[in-house]
Amino acid sequence: MKNTTIKDVAKKAEVSVTTVSRVLNNRGYISDEMKDKVMKAVDELNYTPNEIARSFFTNETKFIALIIPTTKNPYFGELTFHIEKLLAQNGYNLFICNSLNDIKNEKKYLKLLKERRVDGIIVGSHNIDISEYKNLENKIVSIEREITQEIPIIQSDNYLGGELATKELINNSCKSILCVVGDKNILTPANDRSEAYRKVVSEHGLKSNIIEIPFNYSFDKKIEIIKSILLTEKYDGVFAGDDVMAKLFINAAKDLGIEIPKKLKVIGFDGTEMIRLLNPEISTIRQPIDLLAKGAVEALINLINGREVEKQIIYPVELISSNTTRLT
Amino acid sequence: MKNTTIKDVAKKAEVSVTTVSRVLNNRGYISDEMKDKVMKAVDELNYTPNEIARSFFTNETKFIALIIPTTKNPYFGELTFHIEKLLAQNGYNLFICNSLNDIKNEKKYLKLLKERRVDGIIVGSHNIDISEYKNLENKIVSIEREITQEIPIIQSDNYLGGELATKELINNSCKSILCVVGDKNILTPANDRSEAYRKVVSEHGLKSNIIEIPFNYSFDKKIEIIKSILLTEKYDGVFAGDDVMAKLFINAAKDLGIEIPKKLKVIGFDGTEMIRLLNPEISTIRQPIDLLAKGAVEALINLINGREVEKQIIYPVELISSNTTRLT
Repeated sequence: MKNTTIKDVAKKAEVSVTTVSRVLNNRGYISDEMKDKVMKAVDELNYTPNEIARSFFTNETKFIALIIPTTKNPYFGELTFHIEKLLAQNGYNLFICNSLNDIKNEKKYLKLLKERRVDGIIVGSHNIDISEYKNLENKIVSIEREITQEIPIIQSDNYLGGELATKELINNSCKSILCVVGDKNILTPANDRSEAYRKVVSEHGLKSNIIEIPFNYSFDKKIEIIKSILLTEKYDGVFAGDDVMAKLFINAAKDLGIEIPKKLKVIGFDGTEMIRLLNPEISTIRQPIDLLAKGAVEALINLINGREVEKQIIYPVELISSNTTRLT
Repeated sequence: MKNTTIKDVAKKAEVSVTTVSRVLNNRGYISDEMKDKVMKAVDELNYTPNEIARSFFTNETKFIALIIPTTKNPYFGELTFHIEKLLAQNGYNLFICNSLNDIKNEKKYLKLLKERRVDGIIVGSHNIDISEYKNLENKIVSIEREITQEIPIIQSDNYLGGELATKELINNSCKSILCVVGDKNILTPANDRSEAYRKVVSEHGLKSNIIEIPFNYSFDKKIEIIKSILLTEKYDGVFAGDDVMAKLFINAAKDLGIEIPKKLKVIGFDGTEMIRLLNPEISTIRQPIDLLAKGAVEALINLINGREVEKQIIYPVELISSNTTRLT
């Protein structure tokens, strides 16, 4: 079937193409009578405006891109869900770029997004050369990533999260606590978590032990590293980078016959709906993922509409104290 | 900064806009000398072709839409990841539509996708009025959803999965087995799982017990239903609709003091990477999510390129027998 075009509508309504375009885009003065005539023709022909043609003239695409490491991870799966839902409510479509935290992938996506003329980008991925982002004409906001001074950042209160997690372990009599971080070279406010950890353990006269286990390592490699840590070091508490990491420590401890929480206490970070549902026994710091999504979408839409946006928005976190840190 | 346009390139290369367009789109005969001249100008001006303009002329957008219930669910999170990766490798961008299995949402998305002139759609969501899909001019494939006779369906061997799961429970001496299904009114090959269950229990002289717990119910409501089942009925085996449902049964049983696997054996379905990592104790039927994604992307690209596509592609599943069905 041939697509109905704006020309068919104009012919049917016996007006010019320009008039139809004006009515559809609500531009310029048009009498109510003329509007009715055009809309009647639109209805009768079941005409769907071609968004491509529209965006060619309005310089808007109503597309927003989200760059994240992977929707496989429950945190990013939930973040994607909330962002997409909020954007759809505001008339935007979301396209997804799973960068796998690979700089090459991310560069390829950024080039493509430029070609696609997306209206805006939400970045929750690796931070690559600042220059690449500076050269983009698109509006950008980031979630938990420091990109440039100009790009607004939406984040959780990571420092508070680090304090709450470390104190939860200390309050449950841990004396030798390991803090696990992701890639140290990624500039992210999540680094505040280990800063807070460092301060709290030092205030309690304890030693600071920080280990880096990069997000991109395979799960097998992560499990291998964890087992070698548990076999060679004598920790009684672990502040894991996220809940998936916490669960890997819990599973490894079980395999090695280390009792949780009796011999080892573990606390995660994120507190996604899925993890709390599947593994309610895990103590964690819950991030308000729905609020992070809302903050990012609002900031981006404000940027697109030329409004002022705060450079940093911080949302509170919450301790969920459960079986992996408490002797019941 | 003003965007460099195709006109600037034409001026610099001292050729017509049509010639530049031909070179960039590899259309019509162009001498190598002319090509070099144009590409040199493109390089010098650091020109990025405007994809919107391009798609306006080529009638291709290189956009594919994926309609799924929600990326929060681990199965759909992994499916989305694999589909996006494969599409990106083939020069397509993916945009995400979280329908939440709501018919109204799905209709809104379909209207929008028509306006957006996406090149194709992958559907893994609720099946709404067939008419809505029939009216679309886009190329469509589905994953695990029966839409129309014409739309190719990519699926797991659900019947085999149902047989393997039911036999696993019977082999571990279950006599009273409950089979949990999602919404019965969704036409999906997943219905074959309960068909296989029905056949296997009947072959073993056992009674068939099938209960519907819709996917869209809140987790609280699901847990309430599960607890009331476990309190009032005397089942010793549960074939859950998916792994999340299996975990809800396991957690509810734990809360009620019902020992697993001693008093109740539970098997799930899906076997996502995340669930196998976080909850390796759960017995499950593993679907080849990477193959489902690959099959769907290949079929869709073939459709777009006017090639023949099989109407049904079935991938094998695998039993993962673990602690929730076996007395160790």
